Amino acid sequence: MALAATTPSGPHRGDLAGALEELREVLGDCLATGAAVRSHHASSVTWIGAQPPDAVAFPDSTEEVARIVSICAGHHVPIIPFGAGTSLEGHVNAPRGGLSLSTARMDQIVAVHAEDLDAVVQPGVTRNALNAHLRDLGLFFPIDPGADATIGGMTATRASGTNAVRYGTIKDAVLGLTVVLASGEVMKTGGRARKSSAGYDLTRLMVGSEGTLGVITEITLRLHGQPEAVSAGVCPFPTVRAACEATIETIQSGLPVARIELLDAAMVEATNAYSKLSLAVTPTLFLEFHGTPASVEEQAARFGEIAAEHGGGPFDWATRTEDRSRLWQARHDATWAAAALRPGAKPVPTDVCVPISRLADCVEETLTDIAASGLVAPIVGHVGDGNFHCLPLVRPGEAVETEVCAGFIERLVDRALRMGGTSTGEHGIGQGKMAYLEAEHGVVAVEAMRALKRALDPKNIMNPAKILIP
Amino acid sequence: MALAATTPSGPHRGDLAGALEELREVLGDCLATGAAVRSHHASSVTWIGAQPPDAVAFPDSTEEVARIVSICAGHHVPIIPFGAGTSLEGHVNAPRGGLSLSTARMDQIVAVHAEDLDAVVQPGVTRNALNAHLRDLGLFFPIDPGADATIGGMTATRASGTNAVRYGTIKDAVLGLTVVLASGEVMKTGGRARKSSAGYDLTRLMVGSEGTLGVITEITLRLHGQPEAVSAGVCPFPTVRAACEATIETIQSGLPVARIELLDAAMVEATNAYSKLSLAVTPTLFLEFHGTPASVEEQAARFGEIAAEHGGGPFDWATRTEDRSRLWQARHDATWAAAALRPGAKPVPTDVCVPISRLADCVEETLTDIAASGLVAPIVGHVGDGNFHCLPLVRPGEAVETEVCAGFIERLVDRALRMGGTSTGEHGIGQGKMAYLEAEHGVVAVEAMRALKRALDPKNIMNPAKILIP
Repeated sequence: MALAATTPSGPHRGDLAGALEELREVLGDCLATGAAVRSHHASSVTWIGAQPPDAVAFPDSTEEVARIVSICAGHHVPIIPFGAGTSLEGHVNAPRGGLSLSTARMDQIVAVHAEDLDAVVQPGVTRNALNAHLRDLGLFFPIDPGADATIGGMTATRASGTNAVRYGTIKDAVLGLTVVLASGEVMKTGGRARKSSAGYDLTRLMVGSEGTLGVITEITLRLHGQPEAVSAGVCPFPTVRAACEATIETIQSGLPVARIELLDAAMVEATNAYSKLSLAVTPTLFLEFHGTPASVEEQAARFGEIAAEHGGGPFDWATRTEDRSRLWQARHDATWAAAALRPGAKPVPTDVCVPISRLADCVEETLTDIAASGLVAPIVGHVGDGNFHCLPLVRPGEAVETEVCAGFIERLVDRALRMGGTSTGEHGIGQGKMAYLEAEHGVVAVEAMRALKRALDPKNIMNPAKILIP
Repeated sequence: MALAATTPSGPHRGDLAGALEELREVLGDCLATGAAVRSHHASSVTWIGAQPPDAVAFPDSTEEVARIVSICAGHHVPIIPFGAGTSLEGHVNAPRGGLSLSTARMDQIVAVHAEDLDAVVQPGVTRNALNAHLRDLGLFFPIDPGADATIGGMTATRASGTNAVRYGTIKDAVLGLTVVLASGEVMKTGGRARKSSAGYDLTRLMVGSEGTLGVITEITLRLHGQPEAVSAGVCPFPTVRAACEATIETIQSGLPVARIELLDAAMVEATNAYSKLSLAVTPTLFLEFHGTPASVEEQAARFGEIAAEHGGGPFDWATRTEDRSRLWQARHDATWAAAALRPGAKPVPTDVCVPISRLADCVEETLTDIAASGLVAPIVGHVGDGNFHCLPLVRPGEAVETEVCAGFIERLVDRALRMGGTSTGEHGIGQGKMAYLEAEHGVVAVEAMRALKRALDPKNIMNPAKILIP
């Protein structure tokens, strides 16, 4: 059993006092050491125990981040980048103490190049703030992990979400980065060209590196034009397998679906209660189509046919913005809806991703496992990518439940790997999934990751004890 | 001036004789040292002088590659991976001697998972061979750099081509890799899941690393369903600017065009002569649309409207396979058509890529430069991505022409960088563009690339003196 909560929260090894003294000169009031602020910067929606940092810095520019990192490097003090704190695998914990580096004040949209469909943002900009800014320009940023995460955090954890089936993950959206390396030097990667084959892909090495290779201080993002027409709908199925098979056929047929989300019966029940919907309590797909009015209509009609072939339907779809918004708000509230199923319990969101042909098998085996474990654990997922989430509800501090949940997650990961999948489709490794990295990638790849980490962060000050088991 | 042809072709520094003796035991007849074979493995469509390897190995499996690399590592002998030899910047040269490692015998399609839309291939499979295999399955592999390159070579150079505007580049198509590292160890990266956030993105670090970080021995590729309907067409414009502006508006409006290619007037003239077409000699866009019959028709109609707004047209489009094939064959023969414009001269293909808003400026300034230089240099490009190629025609051995051409390429790259672009959209760095890497990425990023190279190839035996100036 591999409970990341057991990662030792040992003392930092560097000269914290010396670093704080220098940092205070640079940051003044923008350096906080109070218990409440420190505690806030270690909390996240996870069961992994909080490990607060020794201090929290609130820089407002790349230059300030570079000075902070230089100071910390000089004193061997760890740096843990912090965005909105919505990560799910303990990414923002400080198991070796050190400085949490909040991007809260770096929330500027630096530029929008409407004709190039790109934007340059600071890392503390949230996806909702960016989309609010883009709305009147006819543009949007599609990556949507549910929570109103920061773009910096999403980049660092290789986030995706409901639109990834059509628009890709953030790795596809990031054109270039500014990164403060562990040395305090400022690195630029990529650029504004749509594509490049000029040297190693440092951009994508940084995307998903979870703050362990540097601090992301600016992101150039690819945007999309707002679709002319959007329709969304809900389609019930008799079984999870039928819903998965309809999904597979939808993807295989090349239907450019923008969103295709599965809720199992437990999740539908929770959503009905929480979001005041009255869906039939059965496995259900939520869908969205983007395109011209004619193509959206054509897509919806085709999906309806596919659903019917698999015993699903009726497929109700709506083009009214209010109806769509209500539907997707309900989808995004899934975590809270699930939590409400079992008052006093906390959801432990976990995700895996498998080749889509194994999706039905993987979800069915997981449902059987949930039933056998006696867990309450609704399932919701970005099934067009083969990615799904389980939300086991566990009472904090209950050792037996925690153990049962840990065993369930371990079996879930093993199942996904056995089916050719990955231990995490979009949540990242953080502390919670370090134990599975070698099983997934093999020892040679993990040793290569260690070599890259050593090459770029020889003092191991950048978010240490994450991704790679120390 | 930064002519890569001047890279010193010094002797290798390792124990070649010792390595060859051991290699012969492993490879038998599949190790060649004859002058003709060696010469063939250093030739490419480039002006960079050939630097043949000392020997050529033809392994047939990952295990054999691993043994070869181990032997070469033991004797400090360079290894230069070789696919179809279609690279354009001297990637397959052996400036320090060593062993060319041909993937010609590694040409097996290992698996096609039709329901997951993926395939596993050996690196010597060419894109045409893969597509011939996929045809009856209703699938296709969209990355199309023109030449019938190998998938291994395309992966190593981060290739793209005409379909990238819709389907992305090969970095978007590769799901996972098997790579023999410089140590001789076999590394697996990625997997068959559509997405993953499990650790560093080793897959994309290897994509575009041009053989300098390891030998790619197996590739898992994302496939696409063959579109139900395809139409293609040709649209003349009064000026390059008008064609570029129509392209910009097409992309901005979200029209999901599958291909949008610009030929300048010189290129149209060359293509008419070479491919027996009778296009008006004026800047021209070649286009292709994929979708359902209704959506293809809608896309073509919309593009026709956009073209007309910019003074272009008439937009002639065809859905007959023969007509389409003839058009795209003509497009793919552009290099040879250009060459025929000036008998005795050799095309020197070069490419840059800029943000699409700067495309018209960049192409116009480049046309002015071509005229002022007295060069014959047709232009053809994947303009939907802001990527275009120039094909200066230079008589081999003519020093003045060569100098003029080198100056032209240097100004072209400077121009692209000044406009926020990249020194190469899809050809790669190889030897030919090493001099521009620092101007493009800055010293910190280039030093980070060097650190990664040292971390994974401490002996510098993997395709040395490529990408990074030795």
